[in-house]
Amino acid sequence: MKVSQTFIPTLREVPADAVIASHRLMFRAGLLRKLANGLFAYLPLGLRSFRKVETIIREEMDRIGSLEMKPTVVLPGELWKESGRWDAYGDALMRIKNRLGADFVISPTAEEAFTAIVRDELSSYRQLPLSLYQINTKYRDEIRPRYGVMRGREFVMKDAYSFHANDESLDKGYQDMGRAYRRIFKRCGLTVISVRADSGAMGGSGSEEFMVESEIGDNTLLLCKSCDYAANVEKAECKLDYSPRLSIEAAKAAAASTPAIEGIDTPNVKTIEELCGFLKTDAKTFIKTLIYRAVNVELDLTGAPGCDALKRQSAGASAAKGGVEFYPEAFFAVLIRGDLDVNEVKLAAFLKAAEVSLASEADVTRLSGAPVGFAGPVGLKNLPVIADFTASAINDGVTGALAKDRHYKHVAYGRDFDPWKTADIRTVKAGDRCPHCGGELYEKKGNELGHIFKLGFKYSKAMNVSYLDEEGKSHFPSMGCYGIGVDRAMASVIEEHHDDDGIIWPITVAPYQVIIVPIKYNGIVKETADKLSDDLEKAGIEVLLDDRDERPGVKFKDADLIGVPYRVVIGDKNLAGETPKVEIKRRTEKESRLFELGNAAQELAGMIRKELSELNE
Amino acid sequence: MKVSQTFIPTLREVPADAVIASHRLMFRAGLLRKLANGLFAYLPLGLRSFRKVETIIREEMDRIGSLEMKPTVVLPGELWKESGRWDAYGDALMRIKNRLGADFVISPTAEEAFTAIVRDELSSYRQLPLSLYQINTKYRDEIRPRYGVMRGREFVMKDAYSFHANDESLDKGYQDMGRAYRRIFKRCGLTVISVRADSGAMGGSGSEEFMVESEIGDNTLLLCKSCDYAANVEKAECKLDYSPRLSIEAAKAAAASTPAIEGIDTPNVKTIEELCGFLKTDAKTFIKTLIYRAVNVELDLTGAPGCDALKRQSAGASAAKGGVEFYPEAFFAVLIRGDLDVNEVKLAAFLKAAEVSLASEADVTRLSGAPVGFAGPVGLKNLPVIADFTASAINDGVTGALAKDRHYKHVAYGRDFDPWKTADIRTVKAGDRCPHCGGELYEKKGNELGHIFKLGFKYSKAMNVSYLDEEGKSHFPSMGCYGIGVDRAMASVIEEHHDDDGIIWPITVAPYQVIIVPIKYNGIVKETADKLSDDLEKAGIEVLLDDRDERPGVKFKDADLIGVPYRVVIGDKNLAGETPKVEIKRRTEKESRLFELGNAAQELAGMIRKELSELNE
Repeated sequence: MKVSQTFIPTLREVPADAVIASHRLMFRAGLLRKLANGLFAYLPLGLRSFRKVETIIREEMDRIGSLEMKPTVVLPGELWKESGRWDAYGDALMRIKNRLGADFVISPTAEEAFTAIVRDELSSYRQLPLSLYQINTKYRDEIRPRYGVMRGREFVMKDAYSFHANDESLDKGYQDMGRAYRRIFKRCGLTVISVRADSGAMGGSGSEEFMVESEIGDNTLLLCKSCDYAANVEKAECKLDYSPRLSIEAAKAAAASTPAIEGIDTPNVKTIEELCGFLKTDAKTFIKTLIYRAVNVELDLTGAPGCDALKRQSAGASAAKGGVEFYPEAFFAVLIRGDLDVNEVKLAAFLKAAEVSLASEADVTRLSGAPVGFAGPVGLKNLPVIADFTASAINDGVTGALAKDRHYKHVAYGRDFDPWKTADIRTVKAGDRCPHCGGELYEKKGNELGHIFKLGFKYSKAMNVSYLDEEGKSHFPSMGCYGIGVDRAMASVIEEHHDDDGIIWPITVAPYQVIIVPIKYNGIVKETADKLSDDLEKAGIEVLLDDRDERPGVKFKDADLIGVPYRVVIGDKNLAGETPKVEIKRRTEKESRLFELGNAAQELAGMIRKELSELNE
Repeated sequence: MKVSQTFIPTLREVPADAVIASHRLMFRAGLLRKLANGLFAYLPLGLRSFRKVETIIREEMDRIGSLEMKPTVVLPGELWKESGRWDAYGDALMRIKNRLGADFVISPTAEEAFTAIVRDELSSYRQLPLSLYQINTKYRDEIRPRYGVMRGREFVMKDAYSFHANDESLDKGYQDMGRAYRRIFKRCGLTVISVRADSGAMGGSGSEEFMVESEIGDNTLLLCKSCDYAANVEKAECKLDYSPRLSIEAAKAAAASTPAIEGIDTPNVKTIEELCGFLKTDAKTFIKTLIYRAVNVELDLTGAPGCDALKRQSAGASAAKGGVEFYPEAFFAVLIRGDLDVNEVKLAAFLKAAEVSLASEADVTRLSGAPVGFAGPVGLKNLPVIADFTASAINDGVTGALAKDRHYKHVAYGRDFDPWKTADIRTVKAGDRCPHCGGELYEKKGNELGHIFKLGFKYSKAMNVSYLDEEGKSHFPSMGCYGIGVDRAMASVIEEHHDDDGIIWPITVAPYQVIIVPIKYNGIVKETADKLSDDLEKAGIEVLLDDRDERPGVKFKDADLIGVPYRVVIGDKNLAGETPKVEIKRRTEKESRLFELGNAAQELAGMIRKELSELNE
């Protein structure tokens, strides 16, 4: 392909909002243009790499026997109501109404669509396992789309769904998928961090996230310096640096020698730090108490303090049929040791809530009877108290006294208050100890490229999918779901493979494998360039020929920017000798080498095939 | 691929709403399932054929140098407001609002997106011509989706847009595209009727529709028995069977001997037929007068009767900048000879209106001063009158008298009334004469598969796209746009290639090229089947191996239903002889032939390659 016949509008300037390398380079190299916030058009050069990533994913899915399908991008709202996600999914779900008043969504994932199709066709265990996938457009109504296609509103995702008759089969499907994902990332030249949250048990609810390190990653990862432990901060655990007291009896016993609880005035003392100074104590003795508002809480609150008046709603099928029942809104007091932070994802998971956030000032005052800063568990009657395990270890602590400028000291867990529930809701951070080996944990920022997940029976029950076993007995199939973001994978390749001059494409996903740069596109140089291009194309190599009437410096700069793995420079001088030569340079290397023109096509094709097979093997 | 390892849920029953062969067969053969009205999921087998159609289109686009891109499916409403189509496009445009209140559309076509991208990158004539395309998801909020994917809500379209510096270049781009389309349809095995509406002049506003004949076609085509004239009824013209009088003077002269106009009572006479009986005259002497309501009329109505109070609105850029100004609503009296029908598409085109429809009874009464059935042009003051040319030839006619049970006779065009405009708004029908050769026209129903269209400057002006010519002068580029529906093309292949037993895929778009049916999948038969399958796959042939434990009859029926072009039957008896044989049958033929097993793979591969190259050449 001649540069003059394609459309590669390279830029010297960088869009103001492009703060990460892939965003900058995708614009500068003419791969991408913006249509609106979070909506991007792939230009011809960008689409070539995009399709290669897609093809690698497709090949690896096909290799493990997953079958490609194509449901629609716009999906009927009815299916989402059946599963309960019409209500349970947050505002990022793009819900639309057509002109006849029917509800639709623009698919952010497609559990419902695949489950509905399988439901209608599945009758016998003989049809299982079944693994289906699509590579198709997805949409999420992101509030703040950022970083180019790394977090866009519209994107392409490979999403796969598998259906199984037993745990062994689900486990095999899940393992196969994990292996396919590792191959996909390797073939794309991506280094991924595997973050497992397996229960260990077969069947169960295992999951594995495939992350790439990124300074702007959505995810904070905790990694162990001593072993291969890696966890998302959302779920990370750590070795305990205290002795939790899980029974009230144990807590009471530990409080035997604690002085009696004592109210104190603490005027003008606001932060935990100030309070520690005032009381000459340590934040670790403080029982921090935070009031949280939670939305769509599925946890059963029957009998919880202050929750008598709450009513459960149901979405989709009733709970008995695998559907979802939830409290639209509920408030909780959350206790944690004063030097630690509450992990809101863990809290939401514990409450089975769609969302948790700190309660408003007005709600705090209403519920705790005091301004923000003086909440505490002692005497708190109208809220369920959730204590992190760290709070349960405090037998002589300080906490708010539910009144302005008042605290309690000598507070003992179990003696002076008895929380409704205890749980692990602590945010693990760098310096904490590895839960596996006790080694020191450190942090990395990461972006999720892929996720494999054992869904279990969530959708098959909610949507009433069944099959008959050998004895004619009806069962729900268990399911797995598995996703890879194509755009994000492509952008991550650029994040990992670039330098100050531009992109450095791995050969497998390069838009072209060779760029031929004639010093001046005329005479013998033109003839040589044309012939070399033809010869390479005949050998199956993808060639870009820079036939523009530009200075060599401009062409070299563009070649580096768009990152084609091999550059061939053809000039009069090297052609003039007894054995005409051309200059070949790899994008990864500084120096070029001279090759005899007669062998150049063959040698170059050989190098490229070798590099391809190394990455693809 | 073994049948047991894929997912081909064939059906014996046909969905109740499947009235055409492709819809029925796509369901029965397990190619497609319904997610909701107008939303269909392609199952693995269907997707294979779908991708082949897509690939043929891609190859032919690439061959003519069109460059593939990928804008988003969800497009910013702002761009549609710039072009004016946000308002001008009908209700089939799926307009959505995101959670921040911003407007979007789900793309039904993408003129705006491509024009916006080119606008930002185009500076010099040297960059032109530029031809860009996408193969991507589209959405139309159809009120009545029907006939499976033939008229679904979501579909995939190849849409291309070209940009040119002069008429010759636009003409070449348009001709290239036409040739590419003819090759695409030929390669898919489709017989298309080309319906041209070229202005003939280079540049201009040519268009060509590629139709397939279909009993349920959206389009009525008029074809000439004597020459190759073919036209959509929406635009069809015919040789005139009367002498139109375009000047009022000519009309007055022709009315010289016409008796004076005379009012008559016509009690209980309602239809033109009844009136003809009552007056003992012919419908051809009747001036039928219909009151139409038109929406978003761009035709300038300054000075038209009854239009003084109408206000023009503008959409997008102002008219001076290529934008659109229109009257949101206007009414017209339309005259036509009594034996003919008004062609509403021609009328809308003449008025440059988004939509025309017969006025409501209330509006007719209000505007004509009489109940429906008594409108007429004589004395009609408060409406612009548009006369079809046929009405202009009537110099002694009958028409309504703007009062209940009253008509006029001896009405002469030009003498008794003078319409605001005359135009060709007649519906041409079978039996009319060809405008080219005078031959007899006949009708066919057709579905549009593709359309190529010279847009001219509509979008480049409205969206202010410009480039500098060699002298540094700024110009708008002219544009063409070109579409093919992928789903509809695939369904049309089935419409054209099927019999009572199922689909008969052309080799180029068959999901598999060979199906191997072992009479019983075990022992020597299984070994032979496996080996033949391997050998064929090694030769690059796509093979489906029916390894199910079903009776041969069931397997044969399914093989016929899914329509694989070559069937190989392997059975004990034929393998037992001295030279083992297998039975090969083409889906198009009744009889099978015996082939020596030793040569079967090679011969079959040869036949398939020959067939492929014949269609693809």
